[in-house]
Amino acid sequence: MYPLDLEKLIGYYQKLPGIGEKSAERLAIATLELSEDEVLDFSETIKNAKKNLTRCTICGHLTDQEICPICQDESRNHNIICVIEDYKSIFSLEKTGTFHGTYHVLNGLISPMDDIGPEDINLSSLISRVSKLNNPELILALKPTVEGEATTLYIKKILEDQKVTISRLSYGIPIGAEIDYLDNVTLEKALEDRKKISE
Amino acid sequence: MYPLDLEKLIGYYQKLPGIGEKSAERLAIATLELSEDEVLDFSETIKNAKKNLTRCTICGHLTDQEICPICQDESRNHNIICVIEDYKSIFSLEKTGTFHGTYHVLNGLISPMDDIGPEDINLSSLISRVSKLNNPELILALKPTVEGEATTLYIKKILEDQKVTISRLSYGIPIGAEIDYLDNVTLEKALEDRKKISE
Repeated sequence: MYPLDLEKLIGYYQKLPGIGEKSAERLAIATLELSEDEVLDFSETIKNAKKNLTRCTICGHLTDQEICPICQDESRNHNIICVIEDYKSIFSLEKTGTFHGTYHVLNGLISPMDDIGPEDINLSSLISRVSKLNNPELILALKPTVEGEATTLYIKKILEDQKVTISRLSYGIPIGAEIDYLDNVTLEKALEDRKKISE
Repeated sequence: MYPLDLEKLIGYYQKLPGIGEKSAERLAIATLELSEDEVLDFSETIKNAKKNLTRCTICGHLTDQEICPICQDESRNHNIICVIEDYKSIFSLEKTGTFHGTYHVLNGLISPMDDIGPEDINLSSLISRVSKLNNPELILALKPTVEGEATTLYIKKILEDQKVTISRLSYGIPIGAEIDYLDNVTLEKALEDRKKISE
């Protein structure tokens, strides 16, 4: 029913997350309505993004250089490393504007169920980074699942002989949430991680 | 904060309708996660869609041929022409599967407010199509706005000396809507266009 090129374009948009058939059609038609120059540049940009973006050799963040701007930034505290599963979290964490340390992207989490062991994720380079620092701090920003916990425990264990402070993000009630509608596990964690506000 | 190529890609996704900053970021990253072959083909598809798609010389529909498959289709009733503002409506109308006539895309509506007159939209080719047919039927599927009404009136007037049946889509309550929440104008139209179901 669609002309072939449009059908194909709709198909590609549908491959992207959260884009159903109707949205894909809308996006494809909107793409046709861009100017000729924009369409050519859009097409080039997609190709270039895939071609030019690689991983920082220090932290594993997405970058177009060998070492990402965060790892290059002298004004940041290189003694604090925030450990994350996925580079996408870096964009979110940077948006808070309050973290001035560096990052380490694991590219996965330990998951015995899926046969993913410590050697399958970007852990050895974390150990070697830590070993070169003087009393560093690791902040584990991993999701509170079995895999996140397994990875947290492993990192804690493998670094137990080194002088390193390890913390994890607090679990608790998300800002704006109604306590009545929270799931039990979150409530339990919020109780466990409760913060004293007066003695 | 984003690598340049990613930033640019996010920018292009944000140009598309209904895509905010957060979604654009998600789409751009998902694009990076496609395979290299897919990315190259996606990039080509965007370029080709813009390059190869043009308008049917008869009805104005989007097509990669000189004459679109609907106008070429001998099994359709070429004596019935559904008149629409925009080719996008063809995709929706075709999905109903119940219309077997042909289309005519006006590429706009008469709008004195915006200085758009009959000569600024694809009307003269409609008149010439109609004049070559034997007692044709025009179905006006234009939106119920001032511009839609102005265009409807103009078409009615300019064809008043010709043997042509003209109808418009019915206005009324959309299926699934709560009558309590309908706007006044829709209710008024639904009353006006009420259909006798028994005498």
